[in-house]
Amino acid sequence: MNITADMVKELRQRTGIGVMECKEALQESQGLIDKAIEILRKKGYARAKDKMSREAGEGIITSYIHMNGKIGVLVEVNCESDFVARNEEFKELVKNIAMQIAASSPRYVSSEEIPAAEIEQEKEIIKSQLKDMKKPPEIIEKIVQGKLNKFYEEVCLLDQPYIREDKMTVRQLVSSMIAKIGENIKVKRFARFELGKS
Amino acid sequence: MNITADMVKELRQRTGIGVMECKEALQESQGLIDKAIEILRKKGYARAKDKMSREAGEGIITSYIHMNGKIGVLVEVNCESDFVARNEEFKELVKNIAMQIAASSPRYVSSEEIPAAEIEQEKEIIKSQLKDMKKPPEIIEKIVQGKLNKFYEEVCLLDQPYIREDKMTVRQLVSSMIAKIGENIKVKRFARFELGKS
Repeated sequence: MNITADMVKELRQRTGIGVMECKEALQESQGLIDKAIEILRKKGYARAKDKMSREAGEGIITSYIHMNGKIGVLVEVNCESDFVARNEEFKELVKNIAMQIAASSPRYVSSEEIPAAEIEQEKEIIKSQLKDMKKPPEIIEKIVQGKLNKFYEEVCLLDQPYIREDKMTVRQLVSSMIAKIGENIKVKRFARFELGKS
Repeated sequence: MNITADMVKELRQRTGIGVMECKEALQESQGLIDKAIEILRKKGYARAKDKMSREAGEGIITSYIHMNGKIGVLVEVNCESDFVARNEEFKELVKNIAMQIAASSPRYVSSEEIPAAEIEQEKEIIKSQLKDMKKPPEIIEKIVQGKLNKFYEEVCLLDQPYIREDKMTVRQLVSSMIAKIGENIKVKRFARFELGKS
């Protein structure tokens, strides 16, 4: 197996361990990075654990606590430069997104995050609801797709109508800020806790 | 299948749907609550989705944002009464726990949350590190257990040394507040986001 300089570099960035050790581990793992990290750990290079998370751009993490601590939201929004991360308009956008999450309880950032099994289950439920409807299959299919879109609007943050201006979605809100600021902006992740709900 | 009043009551609490509908759904699901909820949803009782999360006591959700938005923590701590939830000492405890999470990056509340596969992998790594050690198996076993406890101290919030007083663990900190306030207190869950780390 030919271990390239790029592979060694990636492993070094992820583990902070020397060139020779990384090269050896990669030879042993036949070039598989994750395997190589495990090999390094087994050899006692404990640091290998700490740097496994990789750099992913600039941005800001903001929280929003609602109703005296009954609802809490944490959200990370990424942008390309620290300059934008410190921009007041960007900060306000992130605050508004946090409030959106508190008010509208999305479960995912976008539909790509929904597990395939959940979408399948939802489709099945929709089809059961329609089973007595006497319409051609292509019409049924359209209705199913429409109801599925409604489901996305409910559970996906980016597809939700924006609470402060419900003619636009949160996706459109983010896009308008991208256009204004000229930097890519991405809602990376969020957590929403509500007291007494799991 | 005999559907008891308790089963109907639980399904009603979880769905907010009428007695007769719940009873029928339970008969159809042979007494399985989750199945019954799905049946109700298929019949179009959309509300069945909203109330599936159950009541779990009082408490507070607090956030802590560190380093100008580079690290953010959200934590839910439960207690038994709203009276305690509004107590200043309780609020300070929760704030300190949030700061602990920001500083010490635990991954779980307690060791019970660690997936069995992860514990197995960790044990294997420890054993590999010790494989050249010439000691009786019972001594090796003790060393493995000791290293595993170290691992828990690293990744489990309750097992971590408390940042403000490292002679006590976070578990002991919580226990001392339970003794003082006379109400059960539980760290339910937390989220910790760090910019550029997944």
